[in-house]
Amino acid sequence: MTEIIYNSWVSKYKRQFGAVLVGTALEFDVMLKSDHQVEVNIVVQFETGFKAYEKMTATADHTYHITLTNLTEIGFYKYYFEIIEFDGPHKYRYFYGATDIGGGEGVIYADEISVVPYTQTIFLKSEKAPDWYREAIFYQIFPDSFAKKYFFNQKDNIFFYGKETDPPYYIREPNGDITHWTFYGGNFLGIIEKIPYLKSLGVTALYLNPIFEARSSHRYDTSDYMQIDTVLGSELEFKQLVEALHQNGMRIVLDGVFSHVGRNSKYFDFDGQFGGQGAYQTQTSPYHDWFTFYNYPNDYKSWWGIKDLPTIDKTNESFQQFIYGKGDSVLNKWNSFGVDGWRLDVADELPDTFIKGIRDNLEKMPDKVLIGEVWEDASRKIAYEQYRKYIYGDGLHATMNYPFREIILDLLTGKTRPEVAAKKVMQLSENYPKDVFLNNFNNIGTHDTERILTMLGESIPKLNIAVGLLMTLPGVPTIYYGDEAGLTGHKDPENRAFFPWNNINEETKKLYQKWVEIRKATPVLTSGDISLFYSNEIFGFIRTDGTQTALFVFNVSNQGVMVDFKELTFLTESIEVEPFFLAAFESVYKIK
Amino acid sequence: MTEIIYNSWVSKYKRQFGAVLVGTALEFDVMLKSDHQVEVNIVVQFETGFKAYEKMTATADHTYHITLTNLTEIGFYKYYFEIIEFDGPHKYRYFYGATDIGGGEGVIYADEISVVPYTQTIFLKSEKAPDWYREAIFYQIFPDSFAKKYFFNQKDNIFFYGKETDPPYYIREPNGDITHWTFYGGNFLGIIEKIPYLKSLGVTALYLNPIFEARSSHRYDTSDYMQIDTVLGSELEFKQLVEALHQNGMRIVLDGVFSHVGRNSKYFDFDGQFGGQGAYQTQTSPYHDWFTFYNYPNDYKSWWGIKDLPTIDKTNESFQQFIYGKGDSVLNKWNSFGVDGWRLDVADELPDTFIKGIRDNLEKMPDKVLIGEVWEDASRKIAYEQYRKYIYGDGLHATMNYPFREIILDLLTGKTRPEVAAKKVMQLSENYPKDVFLNNFNNIGTHDTERILTMLGESIPKLNIAVGLLMTLPGVPTIYYGDEAGLTGHKDPENRAFFPWNNINEETKKLYQKWVEIRKATPVLTSGDISLFYSNEIFGFIRTDGTQTALFVFNVSNQGVMVDFKELTFLTESIEVEPFFLAAFESVYKIK
Repeated sequence: MTEIIYNSWVSKYKRQFGAVLVGTALEFDVMLKSDHQVEVNIVVQFETGFKAYEKMTATADHTYHITLTNLTEIGFYKYYFEIIEFDGPHKYRYFYGATDIGGGEGVIYADEISVVPYTQTIFLKSEKAPDWYREAIFYQIFPDSFAKKYFFNQKDNIFFYGKETDPPYYIREPNGDITHWTFYGGNFLGIIEKIPYLKSLGVTALYLNPIFEARSSHRYDTSDYMQIDTVLGSELEFKQLVEALHQNGMRIVLDGVFSHVGRNSKYFDFDGQFGGQGAYQTQTSPYHDWFTFYNYPNDYKSWWGIKDLPTIDKTNESFQQFIYGKGDSVLNKWNSFGVDGWRLDVADELPDTFIKGIRDNLEKMPDKVLIGEVWEDASRKIAYEQYRKYIYGDGLHATMNYPFREIILDLLTGKTRPEVAAKKVMQLSENYPKDVFLNNFNNIGTHDTERILTMLGESIPKLNIAVGLLMTLPGVPTIYYGDEAGLTGHKDPENRAFFPWNNINEETKKLYQKWVEIRKATPVLTSGDISLFYSNEIFGFIRTDGTQTALFVFNVSNQGVMVDFKELTFLTESIEVEPFFLAAFESVYKIK
Repeated sequence: MTEIIYNSWVSKYKRQFGAVLVGTALEFDVMLKSDHQVEVNIVVQFETGFKAYEKMTATADHTYHITLTNLTEIGFYKYYFEIIEFDGPHKYRYFYGATDIGGGEGVIYADEISVVPYTQTIFLKSEKAPDWYREAIFYQIFPDSFAKKYFFNQKDNIFFYGKETDPPYYIREPNGDITHWTFYGGNFLGIIEKIPYLKSLGVTALYLNPIFEARSSHRYDTSDYMQIDTVLGSELEFKQLVEALHQNGMRIVLDGVFSHVGRNSKYFDFDGQFGGQGAYQTQTSPYHDWFTFYNYPNDYKSWWGIKDLPTIDKTNESFQQFIYGKGDSVLNKWNSFGVDGWRLDVADELPDTFIKGIRDNLEKMPDKVLIGEVWEDASRKIAYEQYRKYIYGDGLHATMNYPFREIILDLLTGKTRPEVAAKKVMQLSENYPKDVFLNNFNNIGTHDTERILTMLGESIPKLNIAVGLLMTLPGVPTIYYGDEAGLTGHKDPENRAFFPWNNINEETKKLYQKWVEIRKATPVLTSGDISLFYSNEIFGFIRTDGTQTALFVFNVSNQGVMVDFKELTFLTESIEVEPFFLAAFESVYKIK
């Protein structure tokens, strides 16, 4: 009987761990015990699909070794192992690849076609984000719904909620369109007024959903990139906001929505309300080439077929200059207000060159961060049939870490066992360049998802675990406004209710404050590696760097358990701790 | 050949003209020339349908005379004439009755069943409204849409327009219901601020659409008769409004909506938001007997089948006491604020006893006026198979004179000739008790109709004539807010746009001011009789009382004409004036 062991997470089998800088030599060791003569090859598949079969060298102790130095393409390679066994006149061929998780220990496959390959990330350069970013506690504000001071109403054909406590409601025409958007009227002066509140929560940076002129209350349908939406306030008030934040040691990141514009925009001007120079109005429009008309003017390319959002051709040089060029470009304008970074909407739909253009623009100033909206594992993302390379250097510092949200929710709703959750976290840790992994913009809910409390069946003990994980897993934590105040709701528009200033849930708020304090008191959380462990009830991990070690143990089950470290499964490093009792949905941590 | 003449509008044939006080002897003279022996009867039909045939006496000059003293029932009688002609052995029987107009000169009918009868109004007592009312220039305000000072928002699940210039828009659910009402947020402080404007226009009294707590922006779905709707302001601000109006010599009339309530009201409480003591919530509700349940609780009587508006049983004594009883009744409460009168919504649906109860309440204080919403000739109104007797004394002072609106519009849009228009006005003048006719609450547009300027194809010359007629025909003129400012729009909600404070049409405003000045400078307009004349192009009339005579001539055609008084047709009195030229849609007047 043949016994094979390989584990991409353990240094005995693979060195170095995880994603590596281009040019790094990678060592692989497969342990294989067999009664027969054996040949072991590592099969390396390039992005093109081309496969190389490299023979591994038998060394002592049933080990087959190879050092690869030829992984020179930025991106990721797939690999697995081919084993050829010679039994007299017979020759057997089989394979060893990864499980569905993608890494760690693998399994044997009889057919090459069935093999789940391991993957190996090769990146161009380390992308440590600015220190302020890495250390930040973010707070995401949906600007219409957070806070309001005075009342603005300079906009045609919109409606304002009568009360801030009214549940969100969209006015739909019989065909489902929204022509009259509903606004709470949140504004910059309101945010300024709430800075003390944000500080009391421990927040150190804001991410604002779009703020530029648009029709809707979400403002992803930009009308004019150069104007602040009047409902939010003036340019002066925006400047006051940025300055007030900076004076309070806080940072601000804006939402850059460059994939598409609103059809009622200066650039497209569907309704002719912007002076008639838009691409829809005239073929001599200066913006004509920004859009793709299949049949002018009514058949045009739009985002996911939504005609309200005509797609921009981001390879168009005039658009690129407009967004990030020298002089009066969009980025230059708003960066000059002191903005500390940008979150790029639908980053998958922005060409790598476009993202690089933005990054180059930001590099001219110190301490700017660039985050991308990606819903999946950004290191493995294929969009429009292309591997996306935005996190391998000269692109994004980080992506929105929705995969973490999913892992946390699945764990707390019983959809996955701690074992699977731990392995999934481990796998992401393997796939991402280490710095990007630590930069990732983590969330447990955004303007595009259900509220965390709703997802958790309004269980506050579960919320406590979710927030704990948000604050202690690798990455930069982001609190979606109002989650800490006990807001509930399913997806858009329910998740965009106004902040309940007169009805804050003090219990949930305290819970957030507690975990923010732990985060801030534990520097290893911003820089340390992770090694995970689990049992049927327990999910936990150790964060370590050169100077600090922190241990977090979460009971994610409905019952109290004795935590006996001898009985836990450790994915990589193990640790010894005296057994202790942990009640249902409770957590403990230890820092040294 | 037989020749018959009777004309109910000419004193030679009938004395006295028009409606008479009960007990008044009425004289009828029919002129009849025949070669044969003739018998003439007046046929008088009572409300019960019973007919009396009274023989008329032949006098000199082919005249047949009768004096009737037995018309003792309040209401109206129908009458016509039966003629029996004896030609030797032959006897012919035929009839003389009115034309479709209903009065004036009549025609011969061969069959009794075909006869259009004349009618004769008998009223209980003269109802001269308070002097201030008779002399008033009213201005109807739809409170949500007139003027706004500061911003109120204390109401659940409503929306406010972002801009006052936004066109009216209702948010309808897929089933057509409106659950989220849209408000401009007009309020009492806004009205107070605009008193100088109203004075500059010449307005002396306001009629306000409902102001009590309700769900909708029109507030005809009352939630609580004892509360001011919070969007409008407080009780104190309402008091300030009344006092400010009085200090400026102006009056205020409120809208009394007593036929039905909103189902989301203190009284019915469909949604259970009013404490659960409403009739829908419990059969032990103090309001249970106000409503008619066919099958408790979901099958109940509602206004025109609109389930949102459960009908009140106005014969219910507890409701009557609540509305107009002693002590803390609705009328007592608001009258104590200084309200000068009430307009009763859907007066047809209020029992005569209920209207009398309200009138009796108002009579306890001086100078209160009571107006009813009636869409047709109120003197001939049959509703729910009953003759309505609200204008014959002890009821309404006046009704909303929609028939005048229709006559004016038909005249200016070419739907009727001046002849028909003149006869219709004359007919109304015959039917109504004289005081009620002079009291009538005239309009050329309300919150329930298209805007006058829209009805006239936005023709300002036509508007000039329409406003001229509004200000000079018998009755009290009411300007629907914003008509003078050039607002346009079809029916609800278009006719409820916010007053265009930054875009007042100065031309239309001046036109209103001009006619208001003429109205005020011409006392005969508030008290005088009317006699009309016409040609194909000309519509005109003389208003006379003991002391003043005013002549008004309107060219309602598309071309200039020479007005030659010798060629005009006069319905009653004639007048001699030198011929003059009158351009298309121009008018002249002369007062002596």
